[in-house]
Amino acid sequence: MDRSFASAVDALSDFVLGGGKRIRPTYAWWGWRAAGGDPDGELADEVLTAVSSLELIQACALIHDDLMDASSVRRGKPTVHIAFGARHREHGWLGSSERFGMSAAVLIGDIALAWADDMLFAAGLPAEVLRRMSEPWRDMRTEMLAGQYLDVLTQARGDSSADAALRIDRLKTAAYTVERPLHMGAAMAGGSPELIDGLRAFGADIGVAFQLRDDLLGVFGDPEVTGKPAGDDLAEGKRTLLVALGMQFGADILDIALGKPDLDLETVEEVRRALVKVGAVDAVEERIEELTKSALAALDAAPVAEPAATKLADLAISSTKRTF
Amino acid sequence: MDRSFASAVDALSDFVLGGGKRIRPTYAWWGWRAAGGDPDGELADEVLTAVSSLELIQACALIHDDLMDASSVRRGKPTVHIAFGARHREHGWLGSSERFGMSAAVLIGDIALAWADDMLFAAGLPAEVLRRMSEPWRDMRTEMLAGQYLDVLTQARGDSSADAALRIDRLKTAAYTVERPLHMGAAMAGGSPELIDGLRAFGADIGVAFQLRDDLLGVFGDPEVTGKPAGDDLAEGKRTLLVALGMQFGADILDIALGKPDLDLETVEEVRRALVKVGAVDAVEERIEELTKSALAALDAAPVAEPAATKLADLAISSTKRTF
Repeated sequence: MDRSFASAVDALSDFVLGGGKRIRPTYAWWGWRAAGGDPDGELADEVLTAVSSLELIQACALIHDDLMDASSVRRGKPTVHIAFGARHREHGWLGSSERFGMSAAVLIGDIALAWADDMLFAAGLPAEVLRRMSEPWRDMRTEMLAGQYLDVLTQARGDSSADAALRIDRLKTAAYTVERPLHMGAAMAGGSPELIDGLRAFGADIGVAFQLRDDLLGVFGDPEVTGKPAGDDLAEGKRTLLVALGMQFGADILDIALGKPDLDLETVEEVRRALVKVGAVDAVEERIEELTKSALAALDAAPVAEPAATKLADLAISSTKRTF
Repeated sequence: MDRSFASAVDALSDFVLGGGKRIRPTYAWWGWRAAGGDPDGELADEVLTAVSSLELIQACALIHDDLMDASSVRRGKPTVHIAFGARHREHGWLGSSERFGMSAAVLIGDIALAWADDMLFAAGLPAEVLRRMSEPWRDMRTEMLAGQYLDVLTQARGDSSADAALRIDRLKTAAYTVERPLHMGAAMAGGSPELIDGLRAFGADIGVAFQLRDDLLGVFGDPEVTGKPAGDDLAEGKRTLLVALGMQFGADILDIALGKPDLDLETVEEVRRALVKVGAVDAVEERIEELTKSALAALDAAPVAEPAATKLADLAISSTKRTF
């Protein structure tokens, strides 16, 4: 189309290939296996391409999310808007470097979102398979965007209730990250309503548990592991269940620390101690345990083909277990 | 999904239903008719739904474009990022109103882009029809985004050459607005390669002509008609062919006026006089005439069914004719 467009496409390519845990394609793949999809069958390659397109949706979500949150680091590298702002500055181009970085991030995220659809529909799947998965595909993208919007709105309103945090978790992580990918995979293989309901119940619970574990990592995690500065979620003012319970239980230091862009390590340590002391960490750990249990029960009750049942149970446990 | 999401969806709905010339659906519809699509046939409603989804792509393009250009007015109303920033301010919400407006505009544009695909694929068209139109659908979305990116990059680089302006026009307007919608429509009806090539040649030329007319309106147009302040394109620093030729021909006032956010009417008038005097307006008018002629010749040579041939010729003339 135009030679200059390559710099946008390269940035997207680097972003997608540069890291990430491939969680959504993994769940979609195992949803397909759960409904009897054959990894040595003739559609396996096409299914692998189709589920991989979820990484492009996630690229859009992250690139736009980093822009909205003004995050400067992702996976240990500058975020897209920061990198393009820096490029603008280095070249001494006209206008505001910040605005240029913002524009590039908006457009590169848009490209990822449009190409996710293109990748899915060009995967070579039969029309009938595409038709069956159109509902979860559609709902997944909308739930992701609704979750992002709700997140932005909740932060603006200063709604730090546990209820608001859980509503966001249900849409942004549970539905978009686990439930719908499983649904999509199972629908591709023509899974029964019973199987799909079971997988969705599993996904809805394990997805929230997964987010709660991530929230704990966002406050307590090692920057080497998370790729983000220590206490980044606190500095960003992220309204998580952990934070909501911390406030509710009287960890007053949160009022001072939350949303402070220049949060020092000492204050982060103080918040950590307070969250443990008031019992917020224990309460979140307990919730993770309950959700993991109910997820595993739903999985157990569903007619899931092996080895998917074992694999999904392993994923559930490994993605929600304590890591510190 | 969540009650609060309604405010985003309402804003998108108001935006799409609140105005616009429906140019892209119109061209797609007449592309379909050109290839023999029957307006009283059984697929007509489904085709109408499918081509209407182009308005959602355009909503994404405009909402994100207004954000990137920091435009405050669109169709006589506040742009989405401005409206949401104002809502934030009125409610006295937390954080920066500007950032909230930006976030809302990013997400509402994303919703429009995702829903365009959903609307197309839920239109009820047979799988074979969807398959035939997948190539122009894919290329159209990428050409739009590539054109936007090239536009941002060209402005940053300060490239005010006529060549750069025409490259952007070819992608952003010609391909995305006329050529691909015609291609998509004709492909839906199973048009021959000969017909599709003819329609695309017509669309590529008339699309550029249409953009050049729009560029003239952006500088000379009546705010009552354009819905934008007088000389808005100049204040935004838009690098159009008109501006490129004006600079090339020695309208030095452009160096002062271009990209000045607080441009006064007197300077706008001065720029107008200079563009006429140096011959830039005549050169652009001449180019519009040439492109319209070659477009009509391509249309004439293509095996276009009536009444589409007459209708497309009328559209070509009415969308490129002098209006002042």
